[in-house]
Amino acid sequence: MEKVAAPLHTLPLKSVQINDSYWSRYIQLVRDVVVPYQWEALNDRIEGAEPSHAIKNFKIAAGEEEGTFGGMVFQDSDLAKWLEAVGYLLQTEKDEKLEKIADEVIDLIAKAQHKNGYLNTYYTLKEPGKQWTDLCECHELYCAGHMIEAAVAYFDATGKRKILDVAIKLADHINEVFGGEPGKISGYDGHQEIELALVKLYETTGNKTYLRLSQFFLEERGSQPHFYDKEAEKRDGTTHWQNSFMIENKAYSQAHAHVYEQDRAIGHSVRFAYMCTGMAHLAARTGDEEMIKSCKRLWRNVVSRQMYITGGIGSQRHGEAFSFDYDLPNDTVYAETCASIGLIFFAQRMLQLEPNSEYADVMERALYNTVLAGMSQDGKSFFYVNPLEVHPQACEANENYNHVKPVRQSWFGCACCPPNVARLLSSLGQYIYTVQGDTLYTNLYIGSKTDVELNGNNVTLIQESNYPWSGEIKFTVEADQENDFTLALRLPDWCAHADLRLNGKKVLMEEITNGYVHLKRTWSAGDQFQLILAMPVERMKSHPLVRQNAGKVALQRGPLVYCLEEADNGPQLHQISLPANAPLQVQEDENFLNGLVVITGEGERQKAEDWGTGLYQRGTHTATETVPLTFIPYFAWANRKIGEMKVWVDEKGNR
Amino acid sequence: MEKVAAPLHTLPLKSVQINDSYWSRYIQLVRDVVVPYQWEALNDRIEGAEPSHAIKNFKIAAGEEEGTFGGMVFQDSDLAKWLEAVGYLLQTEKDEKLEKIADEVIDLIAKAQHKNGYLNTYYTLKEPGKQWTDLCECHELYCAGHMIEAAVAYFDATGKRKILDVAIKLADHINEVFGGEPGKISGYDGHQEIELALVKLYETTGNKTYLRLSQFFLEERGSQPHFYDKEAEKRDGTTHWQNSFMIENKAYSQAHAHVYEQDRAIGHSVRFAYMCTGMAHLAARTGDEEMIKSCKRLWRNVVSRQMYITGGIGSQRHGEAFSFDYDLPNDTVYAETCASIGLIFFAQRMLQLEPNSEYADVMERALYNTVLAGMSQDGKSFFYVNPLEVHPQACEANENYNHVKPVRQSWFGCACCPPNVARLLSSLGQYIYTVQGDTLYTNLYIGSKTDVELNGNNVTLIQESNYPWSGEIKFTVEADQENDFTLALRLPDWCAHADLRLNGKKVLMEEITNGYVHLKRTWSAGDQFQLILAMPVERMKSHPLVRQNAGKVALQRGPLVYCLEEADNGPQLHQISLPANAPLQVQEDENFLNGLVVITGEGERQKAEDWGTGLYQRGTHTATETVPLTFIPYFAWANRKIGEMKVWVDEKGNR
Repeated sequence: MEKVAAPLHTLPLKSVQINDSYWSRYIQLVRDVVVPYQWEALNDRIEGAEPSHAIKNFKIAAGEEEGTFGGMVFQDSDLAKWLEAVGYLLQTEKDEKLEKIADEVIDLIAKAQHKNGYLNTYYTLKEPGKQWTDLCECHELYCAGHMIEAAVAYFDATGKRKILDVAIKLADHINEVFGGEPGKISGYDGHQEIELALVKLYETTGNKTYLRLSQFFLEERGSQPHFYDKEAEKRDGTTHWQNSFMIENKAYSQAHAHVYEQDRAIGHSVRFAYMCTGMAHLAARTGDEEMIKSCKRLWRNVVSRQMYITGGIGSQRHGEAFSFDYDLPNDTVYAETCASIGLIFFAQRMLQLEPNSEYADVMERALYNTVLAGMSQDGKSFFYVNPLEVHPQACEANENYNHVKPVRQSWFGCACCPPNVARLLSSLGQYIYTVQGDTLYTNLYIGSKTDVELNGNNVTLIQESNYPWSGEIKFTVEADQENDFTLALRLPDWCAHADLRLNGKKVLMEEITNGYVHLKRTWSAGDQFQLILAMPVERMKSHPLVRQNAGKVALQRGPLVYCLEEADNGPQLHQISLPANAPLQVQEDENFLNGLVVITGEGERQKAEDWGTGLYQRGTHTATETVPLTFIPYFAWANRKIGEMKVWVDEKGNR
Repeated sequence: MEKVAAPLHTLPLKSVQINDSYWSRYIQLVRDVVVPYQWEALNDRIEGAEPSHAIKNFKIAAGEEEGTFGGMVFQDSDLAKWLEAVGYLLQTEKDEKLEKIADEVIDLIAKAQHKNGYLNTYYTLKEPGKQWTDLCECHELYCAGHMIEAAVAYFDATGKRKILDVAIKLADHINEVFGGEPGKISGYDGHQEIELALVKLYETTGNKTYLRLSQFFLEERGSQPHFYDKEAEKRDGTTHWQNSFMIENKAYSQAHAHVYEQDRAIGHSVRFAYMCTGMAHLAARTGDEEMIKSCKRLWRNVVSRQMYITGGIGSQRHGEAFSFDYDLPNDTVYAETCASIGLIFFAQRMLQLEPNSEYADVMERALYNTVLAGMSQDGKSFFYVNPLEVHPQACEANENYNHVKPVRQSWFGCACCPPNVARLLSSLGQYIYTVQGDTLYTNLYIGSKTDVELNGNNVTLIQESNYPWSGEIKFTVEADQENDFTLALRLPDWCAHADLRLNGKKVLMEEITNGYVHLKRTWSAGDQFQLILAMPVERMKSHPLVRQNAGKVALQRGPLVYCLEEADNGPQLHQISLPANAPLQVQEDENFLNGLVVITGEGERQKAEDWGTGLYQRGTHTATETVPLTFIPYFAWANRKIGEMKVWVDEKGNR
C-alpha cells in the first residue's frame, strides 16, 4: 500500500515573529511608511500624484458622497490590497489606530455592498444594471478576489467578522451567478485572482462551495465556443478598452486553452502567475493529479525558460507579457514587480504540493532581487518595470525603452505594484516554513521566532543570522519537553558547500531529500544547530539558448544578484568586460544605504580616447585599460544619482 | 585674391551608359520587372495585394471615372515616383511602349490639374475647398515635389513639355500661395521634398523663382510662433491622423528649429534626408555659406554618430526616426530603405558642394548594402526595415521586433520603398561622376561609357571592372584629339592600399586631395589606366560609444558588409564567436544567387548539449567547439529559406 503523505501547509502568520537584521527594517518601512502613504494615496491626498479615487468611489457607492466614479475599472482592488496588508500587519503587531481606520473603511465597504451581495463600485456607479456583462475586460471577479483576500487577512488578525461576512455574502452571490448549471453564467474573469481567493475563503470557512467554485472558474477557462466572444456578442461588440485586444487575444489572459492543456507561460505575466497560484492552491486542497501535473508543467516552463536571473518574468512591454522560450532581453524587458510577487505566490503554493527546494529557490530569487528592487530604500517610490540593463538616455530618446524608467516613480496611474509589495512584505512570515506531519521545512532564512506544534507538542524555533550577507544561520529549539520531530533545512541552489553543526559539533548530513537536509532526532530545549552555507562570489552563466546573454557573466553571492552601476564605475558600462580569471573581493560597505556587501575586482575597459571620430574602423585590435570595478546588489540600484546599470557583463577571455 | 572654385555638377544621365557585370542586371530588373510590376500595382491589378488606388484617384479627379479617393493622403506620389523612374529609363534606352503608357498617364495627370495649377487628388476628391489647410499632416507640397521631379526626368528623357508644363503651372501656383509676403501662407510642408524638387526645376527652366521658393520653404521651417500650431488653430484643432503626434512633435519633421540652428539628425529619417538634400542642392546653386555650414554639420552628425555600418539610418520604429548619438540597436533597428536612398541623395548633393571622397564613401556604403538588401534578387519583393540582426521567432513572438520582417514583402500599404529603389537604380548613372572645371571626379566604380566635355573637348571615358568583387578597375580614354584635363579617382575609405598603372606602367600617386588621386596630364586617345584597390577582408569595429556593438566585429570586403545567415551556419547564431586571429578565406560561389564572393573561416560555437536544463548555472567555463563559418554579403540575405541573420559577431580573444 502506497503511503499517503500528510498534507503540507504554511504556518499562521501570527505564529511567526520576524526579528531579522535585514528584513525587520523593510517590514517596519511597510508599517511606518508604505501603508500610511498608500492610505493617503487612496484618499487622494498625495500632492502631485494623480488621484486614486478608490475611497471616494466607495463613499459615493455607499451614499455618503455625491459624485462620479473615478480611476480604472479595477480601482476597488487597490483598497482591498491595502486592507489585506493591514490585516497582515495587525496579525503580527497590535495597532489600535490602524485597526480603527480599517474598521471604518470596512463599514464603508459594507455599506457599498448591494443587498444581494454584489460589490463593485465601478458597475454600481457607472454602469448600474450592466454587472457581469464584460468579465473579459472589467475585472469584477478580480476585485472580488482581492476583497476576499483582504477579508480573510483581516479576520485572521482581529477575529472581527464584518468584512469576512461581506466576503462570504459576495462569494455566495458569485456562486449563484456563476457555474455550469442552466441559468448561470458559464464564464470566468479576464484577470485571474478570484480562483486563489476562493481557496483561502474555503480554508477560513471550511465551506467546500468555494473550493468547487474555484475549480469551476479554472476548468471553464479556455472552453469553446469562447466565453469572451459569447459575452461580447451579447454586448453587441461594445468594449471597455480602446480596442478589442483583450477579447481577441485569448492567450493574453491564458484563456486560449484549458488549464489542463496549457504547457507554457504565455500572455500577461501577472495573470499567468495568479492563475498558477490558484491552480496550485486548489490542487493542494483537492489532490487533483491532473491539476498538479499542469502546475508542474507550467512551473517548469516559466522557471527554466522564461525567468530572468533576478526572478523577473515577462520579456516584453506589449501586453506586459511573456514572449517565447529563452527570449530574455535585458534592456527592453518588462519584469513587472507584481509578476515576481505572483511568482512568489505560485512558489509558495507549490511548496504546499510537495517539499522541493526548487520552489523556495525561485521564491528567494524573486524576493531578494526583483521585489526588493521594486521599492526604494525609503519605501516611497517604486519600479513597475525592473530592467537588467539601463541606459538613461535611451529611456528618453528611443521609444523602445520608454517603459523602462531609470528612477523609481512615486505612484502609478495603474497602482498595482506598491500595494502588492506591501501585502507581500507584511505577510513574509508565511513564506518561511511549511509543515508536513512532524517535519518542519525551512524555506527561507529569516531571523524569527516561531511557534509550531510538531508531533503533538508545542515547539518554539528561533532563527538568527546575518543573511543574506552571511550564510551562517543559527537555530535554537525551545520546548517544554523532549520531542521527536524532523527539521528540514533548504540547501539553496546557489550554495555548493554546506556544513551543519549540532550543539557546536559538526555533524554529517545524512539525509538530503528534494534539496532539504533532514535532521530527525529527539530534540531537547536549548538544542542549537548551525547551518553554514558557503557564500563565495559565483560567476553565473545563462543557458546557451538565451541569445541576449551570450558571452556574458553575472555575479551572484548567496541569493543576491549583483550589478554594475554608473555611480561606482562611470558611464558607458558596455565598454567594461570582466576577465574570466579576475579575482573578486567581497567588501562590507556600512555607509552605502543601510549597509551592504559589495564585490570589487579589476576589469578591462575599452579605451575610447584613442579612437578618433569615425563611426567604424578597420583593425584587429581593441585598446583596453585595466579599471577597478564595483558591483552592488541588484536590489540596491537606482538609490543614488541617475545613471546606467547592467547585470550581465561581457566576459573577457572565455569566448 | 581667393581663387573661386568652378561649380561642381553631375553629368546628364543620358551621357552615362552603364554596362557593368554587377549593376546592369539590377537596372535591367528595374526595367523588366520592377517598373512593369509597379505599373500593375498602381492600377490595382496585383492579386492579393492591397489596391494602390493611385491611377484610379487620378481618373476620378480627371472626370474619367466615378468613385471616391482611396489610399493614403500622399498616394499621388507613388505615381509620380514611378513616372520619374520611367523618365530615367527612357533617358538611357528608347522604349516606345513604355513611353506611350507614360504619355497617357501624363494626359491623365494634366486633366486632373486644376485651372489655377493646383494638383492633388486627395483634396480634389475628398476635401475640395480645404487645400493648403493642413500642410503639417497632408503632404500636398510633398506630392507636388515628386510630380516636379517626375516632370524634370521625363522632359530630360523625351523633350516633351506636357508634364513639365504641368509642373511649372503647379510650381507657379505654389509660388502664388506660399511666401513671406502679406496674403500668402507663410508655411511649409510636414514632409520635406518640394525643396529639392524646386532646385531641379530651376536647373531645367533657369527660372530663379523656384530657387527662391525653395529657400523660402527651408528658411521658414522652425519659425515661431509655429506654423503647425497656427494652421491647426485655424482648423479648430482637427487632425488627419489618429492623433496630433505630427503637429505636436515638431522635431519629427525637423521643424523644431531653423535649419541654420539644427545640429543633429533627429526625427523621421526620410524627412531629414530629403530636407538635407534640398539644403545642399540649394546651397550648391546659391553658394549660401551658412546653409553650407548647416549641411556639413548635419552630415557630420548623421554619418559619424547615427549611421549603421550598412549605411542604414533611423534607429527606432517609433516615428521611423533617429534616436540619439551612438544608439544603433541591430535588432530593433528601423533603417528604412527610403532613408538610405535619401542619404544617397544627400551625399550626391554634398559632392556638388565640394569634392570629398567621404560623401561618395557613404553613398557607396548605403547603395551596396541597405538599398540592395531592400530588394529581393528577383525584383519582386522589398524590405522596408533593414535589420542587422534577425531572429525570426522574435519577430513573431516579441512585439519589440514586430516591425522587422525576416522575409521581403511583396508590396506595402504605404508603398514608398519599391518606387524609390526603382528611381534610384534607373538613374544610377548620375551618381558615378562629378565635374568641376576640367576635372572629372569618379565617385563610384561602375562599368560604363561616359561622354563628357572637358577643357572644351569631347571625351569618352570607359570604365570596366568586376567591382565590387574585385578592386581592379580599368579606364580607357577615347578622344578625337589630345587634351589636358584631370581625372580624379576616389580612394575608398575601406581601402588601405591602392596602385595605379598608366598604359601598363605603375605610376606614383602624386596628388591625393580630399580622398581623390588626381591624374593631371595630356590625354591621348586610347590611353589606359588601371586603379588597383587592395580588397582584403577587413575586420570592422564600431566606435567605443556604440554600446550595441561592444566586443563585436563585422566583416567587410570592398564596399560590401558581410553577415552570417542561418542557411549556411545553422540556427542560434549568437552562440558563434569569431576568434580575433582566425584566418579568413575569400571564395567565389557562382551558384549562389547570381554569383558572389563569400568569406569562410573557422569560428567557435558554444556547446549547448552539455548544459542541461537549468536556465542559469554557476561556473567559470563555457564549452565551445570549432565550427566552419560562411559569411555572405549583407545585400544577399533572406534570399533563401527563412532564418536568423547577424552582421555584428562576438569577437573571441579581443575583449
